[in-house]
Amino acid sequence: MTFTTLVNGVPAESVSSRDRGLQYGDGLFETVAVRHGAPRLWERHLERLFRDAARLGMPAPDAACLTEEGYRLCAGAERAVLKIIVTRGAAGRGYAPPSLAEPTRILNLSPWPVHPAQAAETGVAVRFCETRLGSNPRLAGIKHLNRLEQVLARSEWETDYAEGLMRDDSGNVIEGTMSNLFVVASGIVWTPDLSRCGVAGVMRGWVLDQFAGAARAAPLRCDDVVRADELFLTNSVIGIWPVSRLGDREYRVGPVTRRIMRLANEAQVCA
Amino acid sequence: MTFTTLVNGVPAESVSSRDRGLQYGDGLFETVAVRHGAPRLWERHLERLFRDAARLGMPAPDAACLTEEGYRLCAGAERAVLKIIVTRGAAGRGYAPPSLAEPTRILNLSPWPVHPAQAAETGVAVRFCETRLGSNPRLAGIKHLNRLEQVLARSEWETDYAEGLMRDDSGNVIEGTMSNLFVVASGIVWTPDLSRCGVAGVMRGWVLDQFAGAARAAPLRCDDVVRADELFLTNSVIGIWPVSRLGDREYRVGPVTRRIMRLANEAQVCA
Repeated sequence: MTFTTLVNGVPAESVSSRDRGLQYGDGLFETVAVRHGAPRLWERHLERLFRDAARLGMPAPDAACLTEEGYRLCAGAERAVLKIIVTRGAAGRGYAPPSLAEPTRILNLSPWPVHPAQAAETGVAVRFCETRLGSNPRLAGIKHLNRLEQVLARSEWETDYAEGLMRDDSGNVIEGTMSNLFVVASGIVWTPDLSRCGVAGVMRGWVLDQFAGAARAAPLRCDDVVRADELFLTNSVIGIWPVSRLGDREYRVGPVTRRIMRLANEAQVCA
Repeated sequence: MTFTTLVNGVPAESVSSRDRGLQYGDGLFETVAVRHGAPRLWERHLERLFRDAARLGMPAPDAACLTEEGYRLCAGAERAVLKIIVTRGAAGRGYAPPSLAEPTRILNLSPWPVHPAQAAETGVAVRFCETRLGSNPRLAGIKHLNRLEQVLARSEWETDYAEGLMRDDSGNVIEGTMSNLFVVASGIVWTPDLSRCGVAGVMRGWVLDQFAGAARAAPLRCDDVVRADELFLTNSVIGIWPVSRLGDREYRVGPVTRRIMRLANEAQVCA
């Protein structure tokens, strides 16, 4: 492997300073686990990318083209992270989307992150962030490039916690800075409703599908989360992390969490 | 003038694809009017940039360095627009700001925009946008790079209006997609409170200073705006635009608007 970034299919390390991804955060991204030279949950990532592009009124790149580039970059990578950014492209001044926008594709392969070895086994320590998520149904669920709230939230701690939970301005718990949250209480599986803010993660979608209707999205208050029997976090790279501690409370890795982790391992959805 | 963009002081047309400005919109911008080779309201733009950088916990570039680059780029430009982007710099994966972040400076000079000749004289037609502004006091007022709400709002019309007014999720009128709003009612000058969302424009600050306490920031409802005697919009490039129409209502260019326009012309704050 002699390069790690493709910009519009060509090895490159830079993008136009006029790109609307930089100017306005006018674009989307996907973070994909790579194992044995292939991106995992590829169809789900493409599907989300195209759905989000349509919601932003943004021309999407060709699926076959993106697939070819993704696999080309991943070839030979035993374990890695593929990040895909798609923007509305380079343009002149002004918020109005250009009528002939040509999307920019940026694919980057980076090393598999070093996570604590026991994260997936004994669970991780988590905190509540002070930084809130603003609500906007037009943007809710979309994995877009406007991520300052996550940057500010992740600035609140250094290394004492593996993740921070974010609330909206009404105090509902929405998600982690880089992950989605699942809550198990009295045998029922819940995940926060994302109709007003948050990112509808690909791994969240996969987990919901495994529970096949037995898991529900709903508004969740801090108390609902703190008092739960089991908590776990999901994203495409970490897969599933049980939460072992939230504030003063400690949690065991319970049977529901164990079951979904086993399913994820069997399906090899993560790296 | 042989170049139009400086990246970290060097003529260049591109930035690293790893720049956090692109990855997360983790940065700020300023749009500055240029006349006779010099940026207008330069001290105010620098001041706002540094204040916003501090609020994001972002290292700011050296003021003298930015000033040298700004004036170098503007030299010889009779009338132009200088856009400055400052990001938290290039870094690896993850929302956590890198401990040794080196900010990226992108300065771009572009031609003066073609606005309708009568905009500043007889006023402009304005509409209400459907796209709302999410509320987040941590980000309110900051001219940051997370601008998808403005992009979506500006997508709502083509050329029938000069500007669209945006509301927050409670229905308060906050600002235009690219401008701030002033409302004159019964001889009192109001501008929307920006403590929960919106951009605190440099030209807005200049106008507020001219009224020296006789203008007030307050929550404004649609009715407050529609029933006003005079409405005008401000930004650093357009200067001051009277509003001549909003929905069904027509407005005259009244005495308060005329006075502030005359002051702006005399002070040569715009190009």
